[in-house]
Amino acid sequence: MRKLVGSVYEQPKVGGEVGLVDGLRLLAPCEPTKAVCVGRNYHALLASRGATPPTQPFTFLKAPNAVVGPGEAILRPHGVERLVYEGELTVVMGRTLAQPGASAMNPVEDWRDYVLGYTCGNDVTALDWQDPTVQWARAKSADTFCPIGPWIETDLREPGKLRLRTTVNAEVRQDGSTADMVFDIPALLGFISASLTLYPGDVILTGTPPGAAPLADGDVVTVDIEGIGRLSNPIAAGR
Amino acid sequence: MRKLVGSVYEQPKVGGEVGLVDGLRLLAPCEPTKAVCVGRNYHALLASRGATPPTQPFTFLKAPNAVVGPGEAILRPHGVERLVYEGELTVVMGRTLAQPGASAMNPVEDWRDYVLGYTCGNDVTALDWQDPTVQWARAKSADTFCPIGPWIETDLREPGKLRLRTTVNAEVRQDGSTADMVFDIPALLGFISASLTLYPGDVILTGTPPGAAPLADGDVVTVDIEGIGRLSNPIAAGR
Repeated sequence: MRKLVGSVYEQPKVGGEVGLVDGLRLLAPCEPTKAVCVGRNYHALLASRGATPPTQPFTFLKAPNAVVGPGEAILRPHGVERLVYEGELTVVMGRTLAQPGASAMNPVEDWRDYVLGYTCGNDVTALDWQDPTVQWARAKSADTFCPIGPWIETDLREPGKLRLRTTVNAEVRQDGSTADMVFDIPALLGFISASLTLYPGDVILTGTPPGAAPLADGDVVTVDIEGIGRLSNPIAAGR
Repeated sequence: MRKLVGSVYEQPKVGGEVGLVDGLRLLAPCEPTKAVCVGRNYHALLASRGATPPTQPFTFLKAPNAVVGPGEAILRPHGVERLVYEGELTVVMGRTLAQPGASAMNPVEDWRDYVLGYTCGNDVTALDWQDPTVQWARAKSADTFCPIGPWIETDLREPGKLRLRTTVNAEVRQDGSTADMVFDIPALLGFISASLTLYPGDVILTGTPPGAAPLADGDVVTVDIEGIGRLSNPIAAGR
């Protein structure tokens, strides 16, 4: 494995050897200023709840304190009994995208020019705190609630038909396809960037298929996306 | 006016003259990784709505894209008709505060050790988008929706009894006291830091008294807090 020299957002050069990937500790592959997450974005999830698709993307924020990398523990906050995983295809921005004045419902036509690549994300959620009558700062953005990784796949041209699976220990719990999204990536980027500027390194977690369920301390949760890789994190008590 | 040499979070030294404050363009006084905002936190606001105080702080997030400094335009997004101000006492963190395992309802006893100082904040909101059934990423965190400034007041010992006024053009629209908060600063810091680590430069917008109302393009909105200063921003169309 070789290191990159220079900013990953500005055509970095390939540098010297840093060893085999198995011998390295991987950190979160980028340092987002924000994670914009999308709820209610898989038809199968909505069908499982008897809900109809939203008329516009349902977005919410996670802050940088929530971000962790592959292998890092997801910490169950003290008193939280229903801590769930949500495996999600995650878009990593490569260029600043701001579209003031554009209609939020217009997809971004040249969206690939703004995307650096893709990674796996886990929209960890404390269901105990996810009251629909409040805002989800605590339920969604607690420390360690945004694992991303294991790396940024930059050679993927077609993110719209990928198999996405989440396993807990050895058991498959979510098994969907990104083809099932209600709003695809160009639509999400158009909606978000009409009001919130997206910066290089910012991430978009694009929603989850059905199958989220509570985790126990000691479980290992893995988000596995075709053509990208596997993001595994253990669950630990202690917050 | 003199510049500071070194990080403002690590006992900076006083450096050379940079001119008179009136001749300088002031930027936002810090670069938060997140703004944690508090809703429903003034008794008078709740009374005006016939609502009872919440049993725990009502928190939500703004991302860094929303932050602007004194004098910068608040941009009304295309199609938004009810863009409102909310003047708020704003806490600027000076040290990292994380309290894993602490009860979220325990105030932080030595809270002053973690606070660098105070500034004025404006929790700008697109009421058109603030549907109670959705999350407020867009309604609260659009670009320019988090003016802060004009500077960080570091000599204020008692932030709990300050007069807070918001004027639009020459007219006073909000006139309250920080003594009216439901949850005071040590309580807010305890609640937030039990799950979200606060970093130096992060800001807490502590809620607003009654009187928020829609702004027109060309209006100038000013948040004026006793012992701190005045934060003025014009409203402009164009997003």
